[in-house]
Amino acid sequence: MKLSIIVIGDEILIGQVTDTNSGFISRTLGPYGWETARVVTVADKADDIRSAIELCMADSELVITTGGLGPTKDDITKGVMCGIFGGPMIFNDEVAANIREVFDIRGLRMNPLTEAQAFVPASCRVIQNRLGTAPIMWFERKSDGHVLVAMPGVPFETEGMLTRSVISEIASHFSPELFIGHKSLMITGITESALAQQLENFESALDKRLHLAYLPTPGLIRLRLDASGTKGDGTDKILDEAFEQLCKETEQYIIFKGDANAAEIAIDAIRRKGLHLASAESCTGGNIAHLITSTAGCSDIYLGSVVSYSNEVKTNVLGVKADVIREHGAVSSEVVAAMAEGVAKLTGAECAVATSGIAGPGGGSDEKPVGTVWTAVVTPGGTETFVKRYPGNRQRVIERASTEALLALAKALR
Amino acid sequence: MKLSIIVIGDEILIGQVTDTNSGFISRTLGPYGWETARVVTVADKADDIRSAIELCMADSELVITTGGLGPTKDDITKGVMCGIFGGPMIFNDEVAANIREVFDIRGLRMNPLTEAQAFVPASCRVIQNRLGTAPIMWFERKSDGHVLVAMPGVPFETEGMLTRSVISEIASHFSPELFIGHKSLMITGITESALAQQLENFESALDKRLHLAYLPTPGLIRLRLDASGTKGDGTDKILDEAFEQLCKETEQYIIFKGDANAAEIAIDAIRRKGLHLASAESCTGGNIAHLITSTAGCSDIYLGSVVSYSNEVKTNVLGVKADVIREHGAVSSEVVAAMAEGVAKLTGAECAVATSGIAGPGGGSDEKPVGTVWTAVVTPGGTETFVKRYPGNRQRVIERASTEALLALAKALR
Repeated sequence: MKLSIIVIGDEILIGQVTDTNSGFISRTLGPYGWETARVVTVADKADDIRSAIELCMADSELVITTGGLGPTKDDITKGVMCGIFGGPMIFNDEVAANIREVFDIRGLRMNPLTEAQAFVPASCRVIQNRLGTAPIMWFERKSDGHVLVAMPGVPFETEGMLTRSVISEIASHFSPELFIGHKSLMITGITESALAQQLENFESALDKRLHLAYLPTPGLIRLRLDASGTKGDGTDKILDEAFEQLCKETEQYIIFKGDANAAEIAIDAIRRKGLHLASAESCTGGNIAHLITSTAGCSDIYLGSVVSYSNEVKTNVLGVKADVIREHGAVSSEVVAAMAEGVAKLTGAECAVATSGIAGPGGGSDEKPVGTVWTAVVTPGGTETFVKRYPGNRQRVIERASTEALLALAKALR
Repeated sequence: MKLSIIVIGDEILIGQVTDTNSGFISRTLGPYGWETARVVTVADKADDIRSAIELCMADSELVITTGGLGPTKDDITKGVMCGIFGGPMIFNDEVAANIREVFDIRGLRMNPLTEAQAFVPASCRVIQNRLGTAPIMWFERKSDGHVLVAMPGVPFETEGMLTRSVISEIASHFSPELFIGHKSLMITGITESALAQQLENFESALDKRLHLAYLPTPGLIRLRLDASGTKGDGTDKILDEAFEQLCKETEQYIIFKGDANAAEIAIDAIRRKGLHLASAESCTGGNIAHLITSTAGCSDIYLGSVVSYSNEVKTNVLGVKADVIREHGAVSSEVVAAMAEGVAKLTGAECAVATSGIAGPGGGSDEKPVGTVWTAVVTPGGTETFVKRYPGNRQRVIERASTEALLALAKALR
């Protein structure tokens, strides 16, 4: 079944905020048989919202809108809905009670603008939003049975309410006949085009219901095998078999079976060996720690990090000798190895990663240009260091260096 | 002038990757008089790409596509372009030479799939992509002069090439008559709806060419005044005057004049006083350090951080007394104050922030539920601590706690 998503909001269209709701909705509804046909982002303008809804409702059984439901004057979505689905706006007591409750929990005082949020189109069925004040609205078009669900724009509310109740409302309304499945592999140590060449025969021989997608990210390629068939026609089995063959074809490059980011791959490798991890970061500035600690449950293997942005912190906290820094420079094999060994000793971790480099835009030289990063990995097997030069701006160098450090750790433990 | 953006890629549509290109393109072209009419995301399917191009070219003088130009089989964009703009695919020597150069710099070997990237539609003018192998293609529709520019999907390449050369090609082709401007204010300490109520008269009296937008993010509201007029009609002056009045109306809640995130606001506050900053993080796990060090040039004020995920690191590195942790628990005013004071002493910084809390999903209790976070701020004026309970999942608690710590520091220095 076809799903279209409409993202409403000037702030997204002018690039001030990045939309993450549409991706969350697609990921969440995919396994229920929904294929996302398109995502359209439009401004808080009645005409643009109306056109996008008409375009999407023409070919999609389900249309989800996010945003445009706030209490301020730039939000006009509800009026557009009345225009399309008919009927007036009416005051909804349940919505008003929910708004009061949300405000009470947050210790805030109601005001007339907030009260106005309790008005909803008479043509909709309200799904109470337990996480915010903007009500979720379910509209059905009589002519073809196509459904529009209007959700709030705040990601926390959209994600929470989709998972809590909107998914089950959708599943009970539509009967999904399609089988849609995905299986992923994480690959490292080969370029996208060399991998594609190696898999040419595999791809040509794939069943028509299957499709192989390459998703390169810096340092890591996600290979995703997609299946799309009808329930009961054996597509699930065909997917499993093709995935098994894909694993054989790419065996030497697989760093993880499944879908995982570099931090999850490193945590998995550490946990399987019953070890503990610490990090010492200069140019990555805490990003390695942030990536690891963004993963729930990491506290059984992760002890902590020292972000040694100044040389004094390298010396006083991590115990890197001042004359080693003087002799080799802060961006060197010797210093990064001493940082990793220092933080392992300080925290009692058996494993550690450390980075020292030039993230830019300033600080580069002919000998050590911007993007030069030394990385050290400590495992029970010993200390390894390597240097690479990463392309791109500051953010890209930080991200790439963090990913490579985590993958190097996973490889060293393999 | 109207701009539409088409994002091509299964991986974005199914929510595996978040599109950031469209936001970058909108932000970058806005000041050149381009108003983004819509962003459409479609799959790597010829029919869907064709429909999206036809929809967008109908009402937009400029259409930019991103993605769908890689060397692997899931990329079919070029064939669609031949269908729309006519003519065959031809081998382009310049593109081939550029691909060879990119591969040489990266120390990679060419292969037949990479060579295939040198074929381009005869109907386009090529803009060489100096940052990757996929050529940038400029198409012009004779009937109405509308332009389509096909750009790669890798953000590093799209961002870099847009800034380096595509913007100037666009500016020299079109003559922008529109004046478009934005001015922003960062607001804290008031809810969106209370702020909107306070600004009701201001908004009602605004010139028709101006528009006020509210952009709430956790802990911080961005107020943006947008102007849209014709060059030379005085819209720029009207924008300046209205912005000045807006500043007066919201004076007590302004934390920053302009557009800035919490880290930039904190760095600015520290730098203005000639001070230095360190951080000690438990539940935020390095995110505060990451936010600060993502800002170029922070090294003049930022010394470093200790991510004390385990209690041993709190005691051994930060000098938090073990009996204080035993008596009050790691998530307490006493411990977080000792962490902040400890890291200030360790690094020699005059200012410090520290966090200790329960980011979840596990670890909560009746007394200290998930989302409970203690924050400490050290400045030359002394140490302050506060506790808040943040709603949402792990990622949201980490982000909110990081933002609130940085804003509390900026407020303490005000």
